[in-house]
Amino acid sequence: MPGTDRNTAAAPPALNPGTLNPEELAHIDAWWRAANYLSVGQIYLMDNPLLREPLLPEHVKPRLLGHWGTTPGLNFIYAHLNRAISARDLDMMYVMGPGHGGPGPVAAAWLEGTYSEVYPHISQNEAGMKRLFTQFSFPGGIPSHVAPETPGSIHEGGELGYALSHAYGAAFDNPELIVAAVVGDGEAETGPLAAAWHSNKFVDPMRDGAVLPILHLNGYKIANPTVLSRIDADELDSLLRGFGHEPHYVEGDDPALMHQRFAEVLDSCLDRIQEIREHARSSGDSTRPRWPMIVLRSPKGWTGPKTVDGLPVEGTWRSHQVPFAEARENDDHRAVLEQWLRSYRPEELFDESGSPVPEIRDLHPLGERRMSANPHANGGLLLKSLHMPDFRDYAVPVEVPGTGQTESTRVLGTLLRDVMAANDSTFRVFAPDENNSNRLGAVLEATDRAWNAEILPGDDKLAPNGRVMEILSEHTCQGWLEGYLLTGRHGFFSCYEAFIHIIDSMFNQHAKWLTTTNDIEWRRPVASLNYLLTSHVWRQDHNGFSHQDPGFIDHVVNKKSDVIRVYLPPDANTLLSVADHCLRSRQYVNVIVAGKQPQLQYLDMQSAIEHCTKGVGIWDWASSDQDAEPDVVMACAGDVPTMETLAAVELLTARFPDLKIRVVNVVDLMRLQDDRTHPHGLADADFDALFTTNTPVIFAYHGYPWLIHRLTYRRTNHKNFHVRGYIEEGTTTTPFDMCVLNSIDRFSLASDVLDRVPRLRDVGAHAREEFKNALIRHRQYIRTHGEDLPEVREWQWSPAAGTTNAVPNEPLREPV
Amino acid sequence: MPGTDRNTAAAPPALNPGTLNPEELAHIDAWWRAANYLSVGQIYLMDNPLLREPLLPEHVKPRLLGHWGTTPGLNFIYAHLNRAISARDLDMMYVMGPGHGGPGPVAAAWLEGTYSEVYPHISQNEAGMKRLFTQFSFPGGIPSHVAPETPGSIHEGGELGYALSHAYGAAFDNPELIVAAVVGDGEAETGPLAAAWHSNKFVDPMRDGAVLPILHLNGYKIANPTVLSRIDADELDSLLRGFGHEPHYVEGDDPALMHQRFAEVLDSCLDRIQEIREHARSSGDSTRPRWPMIVLRSPKGWTGPKTVDGLPVEGTWRSHQVPFAEARENDDHRAVLEQWLRSYRPEELFDESGSPVPEIRDLHPLGERRMSANPHANGGLLLKSLHMPDFRDYAVPVEVPGTGQTESTRVLGTLLRDVMAANDSTFRVFAPDENNSNRLGAVLEATDRAWNAEILPGDDKLAPNGRVMEILSEHTCQGWLEGYLLTGRHGFFSCYEAFIHIIDSMFNQHAKWLTTTNDIEWRRPVASLNYLLTSHVWRQDHNGFSHQDPGFIDHVVNKKSDVIRVYLPPDANTLLSVADHCLRSRQYVNVIVAGKQPQLQYLDMQSAIEHCTKGVGIWDWASSDQDAEPDVVMACAGDVPTMETLAAVELLTARFPDLKIRVVNVVDLMRLQDDRTHPHGLADADFDALFTTNTPVIFAYHGYPWLIHRLTYRRTNHKNFHVRGYIEEGTTTTPFDMCVLNSIDRFSLASDVLDRVPRLRDVGAHAREEFKNALIRHRQYIRTHGEDLPEVREWQWSPAAGTTNAVPNEPLREPV
Repeated sequence: MPGTDRNTAAAPPALNPGTLNPEELAHIDAWWRAANYLSVGQIYLMDNPLLREPLLPEHVKPRLLGHWGTTPGLNFIYAHLNRAISARDLDMMYVMGPGHGGPGPVAAAWLEGTYSEVYPHISQNEAGMKRLFTQFSFPGGIPSHVAPETPGSIHEGGELGYALSHAYGAAFDNPELIVAAVVGDGEAETGPLAAAWHSNKFVDPMRDGAVLPILHLNGYKIANPTVLSRIDADELDSLLRGFGHEPHYVEGDDPALMHQRFAEVLDSCLDRIQEIREHARSSGDSTRPRWPMIVLRSPKGWTGPKTVDGLPVEGTWRSHQVPFAEARENDDHRAVLEQWLRSYRPEELFDESGSPVPEIRDLHPLGERRMSANPHANGGLLLKSLHMPDFRDYAVPVEVPGTGQTESTRVLGTLLRDVMAANDSTFRVFAPDENNSNRLGAVLEATDRAWNAEILPGDDKLAPNGRVMEILSEHTCQGWLEGYLLTGRHGFFSCYEAFIHIIDSMFNQHAKWLTTTNDIEWRRPVASLNYLLTSHVWRQDHNGFSHQDPGFIDHVVNKKSDVIRVYLPPDANTLLSVADHCLRSRQYVNVIVAGKQPQLQYLDMQSAIEHCTKGVGIWDWASSDQDAEPDVVMACAGDVPTMETLAAVELLTARFPDLKIRVVNVVDLMRLQDDRTHPHGLADADFDALFTTNTPVIFAYHGYPWLIHRLTYRRTNHKNFHVRGYIEEGTTTTPFDMCVLNSIDRFSLASDVLDRVPRLRDVGAHAREEFKNALIRHRQYIRTHGEDLPEVREWQWSPAAGTTNAVPNEPLREPV
Repeated sequence: MPGTDRNTAAAPPALNPGTLNPEELAHIDAWWRAANYLSVGQIYLMDNPLLREPLLPEHVKPRLLGHWGTTPGLNFIYAHLNRAISARDLDMMYVMGPGHGGPGPVAAAWLEGTYSEVYPHISQNEAGMKRLFTQFSFPGGIPSHVAPETPGSIHEGGELGYALSHAYGAAFDNPELIVAAVVGDGEAETGPLAAAWHSNKFVDPMRDGAVLPILHLNGYKIANPTVLSRIDADELDSLLRGFGHEPHYVEGDDPALMHQRFAEVLDSCLDRIQEIREHARSSGDSTRPRWPMIVLRSPKGWTGPKTVDGLPVEGTWRSHQVPFAEARENDDHRAVLEQWLRSYRPEELFDESGSPVPEIRDLHPLGERRMSANPHANGGLLLKSLHMPDFRDYAVPVEVPGTGQTESTRVLGTLLRDVMAANDSTFRVFAPDENNSNRLGAVLEATDRAWNAEILPGDDKLAPNGRVMEILSEHTCQGWLEGYLLTGRHGFFSCYEAFIHIIDSMFNQHAKWLTTTNDIEWRRPVASLNYLLTSHVWRQDHNGFSHQDPGFIDHVVNKKSDVIRVYLPPDANTLLSVADHCLRSRQYVNVIVAGKQPQLQYLDMQSAIEHCTKGVGIWDWASSDQDAEPDVVMACAGDVPTMETLAAVELLTARFPDLKIRVVNVVDLMRLQDDRTHPHGLADADFDALFTTNTPVIFAYHGYPWLIHRLTYRRTNHKNFHVRGYIEEGTTTTPFDMCVLNSIDRFSLASDVLDRVPRLRDVGAHAREEFKNALIRHRQYIRTHGEDLPEVREWQWSPAAGTTNAVPNEPLREPV
């Protein structure tokens, strides 16, 4: 059974049966009691913080909100990490998977003084303690979780599953850092956490910091036991060794014994980490070690009341949140609370002023060594701008717009390669085994793929110190990247568009984190989280329906407008310009959608910069409404919709040379919203100048069409917007057929114009028939030949199209 | 090293070194060669299917799309499973995690005859084979994955990660079934798959079928090696034992040796499963066994070309998709293809007509024992309607609308309890450790929670044969439920609203599966996937900002309208009515959003049924526009918005007794869309009758407000819609403050009315000031008292409110 040392590694470090001398033991226990006292106080009290008078109903909060169960364990570990940091002068962070244990780290930060430094009104005295208690889970106060408001945290923890991936993200490229990561046994049941154990195959003991996982088995979730606490000890041990770890066990409930045991085990783990580092760094041998980890098995709600109302509480799921709820109304409950609080002997812990007594106040490392003040946990403090090559140097020459065949993301890869080379410890790229598939392979000229497992001859660019992060887990990629960004570095995540939904919920949490930190002065801005969504809906003709979903944009734009940005660059030069902008930005989530297949190029670099700066603009070279009111605005956003729009323009102008078409291309999607709603939003007058106030608008959009309606419903001309986009029609078929199935192809767009422009009403019958026949011909051709018609496959923009000198508003004639 | 038997269980079954006699070996190998031949043919050929003439460019498809790498492994396993099914008369399904290996199961279904049965034009002869080849990944044909079009599949597999949870879902309550589940080594890196290994702690060997996981290590993903293929053999073995399995290894590349070895190992695994069943079922001892599993280590692209253009292909990532791409244009590539195809010796496999020779044609089980024809894989065939108690029997009495305090989901729990009791092998409920938290605890009176791990005294309602499925993994819950539904049973998933986003992408895949199967005649309808989203955004005052996201609805409504339904019942009786409807429905995803906190009850059962039948309707008892044109429509959808709307009505009518307010409540959200867009959509005339064509509409909506605009932008009166909803403002605060932060509280709604009703323009100043002051008072009160004002907390509808006899359109007077 665990609880005795079950470490059977070849050379277990000798363990000292009494690591702590009596004074150390007393001090560490006092610190723990103080943290626990302050935690219970936060959950329950709004007055009488030092219990200097008997506990009365009005001292207890009317609404009791918070989670006690996990908190004493978090505090216990905190106390011991502090001892080790001080003894060894460690650079250490603390990631708390069970982030609902918010009272713990808040208590610790207050004891360490950090809390009063960043929130001076929460001073280290009785008045401050009262405010500390009252503000917790209280209107106008702080959240109940390890939220951004908590100094020392990069991990909110409200949604479980990301502790390990965040911890590894923090450790990459931080060779001196140790990240202690508590994994709750409930959290351990989640998929993202289960996958993240294998992160140790991506760590280089030379280049990277160390993660020390601490699996906290306290047995219960909200209502159920946890799986890992109820499997046989040998199964658990096998599992953790299978994850690549050397597990050390600490089990029990007697504080004195547990302190000794945890101190011993922590020392041996830290010794082992030191050994691993020294070996790798002196020998140059990065071979993956079996990293140590700790399994802490302690009662849920440890040190809390044993029973309440005759039911067991400590050691059961009843400790999960507030162990008993009626401490204000019910005298018995209040007596239990008072007894519980007094069991920590506050009179020994706090002096007359309410400040921690010196033995506790000084029992933490100094300055930035305090985990609550470690600058890695406020990454903006450490953030340096990327050294950026001039993106204009990577420009694709464009002599004639709408021609050529370039894989735009491959061009982006060359820029990223040089960003990678110029920032060799502050930039990584992340992809779920799709870096090369997404045409970003050039980055492998600057670095390798991170890989610290077996390497065989013929393997391509694998090395422990690589900085291209590829694992077939969107969750792990996202978690690593978040951890990397929040500790002050930069990154770039490329993903198949449909499967980025896998991390919808993680995006939510990160966006909420950014929103909240925007209002926290001491939190410094971090680099933006940059997504490249490629292998997108229009070019999943290969994998079919399951790979077609452009809805991540819809998901993203539900979050606060001050933290989200969406870009749809139609070609390589606009992609370069957008990427440069995103890589320089702070505190955003930038979503870039761009195809990886060979595609037409529209804008030379100067035009691309101008276009991206505006975010939306008229493409004069494709328009025929010079100095006149257009008959129709043909708007487009996204590479494939842009191509189909231009092809439709060509079809129309060839047949109706007098038709006045205005082509508007949208790169920055949020320009469509008004400026009251989004900082990038166009003012109504500017929007009207582009889209008119009364002309039909045929809008070809990359994603679900209703998003454009949602963004524009307040605009003057909205009633004339007719949007085409992806309407969940698709299968394994040709690229052009994907457009046809969703009526966003050139013929359908051109027909939409025929249907909506009054001047064409009487003259469009012949053209309508032509377009209809073209679609029938397409269908027949692909079913026989299996590929698109040559004139579609090879279509390029003809510079003759789109120009007209005809007088506007004269009657249009039917083409002959 | 694996490859030798590393099974160290106490009593390993004796293995026969030559399980297959020479004839069996020859037949099984011939079947495998035939399946491989047909797989390669599907990827490459559109003519000359039997290679009866030399391979010419025009025989090769112009666009080569498909995945070869995993396919020969899938085929190999299929062949061996067939042998075992025949020998043992097994009821067996096959779940293929690497679903991109679509050509494999299509080939197998054709060899088994099933394919021609369901698609008669794909006959078992040369003409049929030509069509079989051509249709694959071809316009108008079939997808490249193990899609719904593939007989025998319940698992598309395009998005990786769900093989095991689907397999376990299929096995629950199917005591005779064995589900062979191939887990790809790429897939094994995903979070959902990593979590699903622990599903064996939820299996009862008496009640449930068995899952036989087959971890297929072929070494590579798209571009990278896989983690599990590159860790030490002892680590892998530890990991799998840690997951609770007894692993058996088969490794190599020599077909003859591999056939013998796999046959031996499969026999011993099936013996072990039989032993486990017999023990449990004869002794009544359900104790969790260490279930056997297989690790198959074989080359990626096994039996494919060794090298192409001088680069290794078999056994490398280059085999992942189409191993070489220019077989049409490049004579050398085409020669490689021809040689490859001929290496399977098609002349031995198919007779003159192109039909499989008898030795192959008959080498499969009969009828429904064929995995391609197993009815469990077309669950609608087995589906029986639930025995449903009369939901009216659970009604909450409502004497006066808008009064009382009932936890609506607790009432639902009593209905679910009796559904559970009445359907003891076809209904399960699923929740990520939230069943009781979501107030569905009554179901535990009818069954236990499934739990086959250690049970301790004091544990609550845990048993191996329980049917309440709780694991802290939304992914696993969702995957189990999908597998359970797709094999013809019924289920109900309750989840915290914010965290249902964790399975956004799984929902996508399931919705797409339903959409596709609607067009496949031989696929019979399955029960709907029912979600109850509770602990919703407005009552996450406890957990705060991280737990607030009502956007799953937005995500859902992007999918095809014929498979999605969204309900927002405002109270217990409407919830009962909606739940009854959903549990009886087929082929939908039903999303029900309802709070779990004590809340006001509005409708007695008869009114609730009428209201839910209409989906949207005027609440006359709350309205004051009798027989007249209203001054304002106050619409609401969702329980909290409904309460705030009614409170606003009361505030307004108290001050302006002559004001004509129409209260419209929306239960069925899709009624808002028009009937051309959604089958539940209201016709424009009906919509106009409710919402008028020109009256201000103040709409209080549960979720993100822009969704209402998206659903109604085509409606006549849309320009007058003013929608309040969640705008990403929130923290740990009081319930009412959550409303205030998002301006959906009664005072803000009432102020919106003042701002928008012309008749109030000149007389509302005093009321506006009152409402403003009420909000200030609220803010001050909660910051002091930590809970809402008593008049807000205790507010109930007063029947006097809302009635008026005044003449419409007479001038309104300022209240005194």
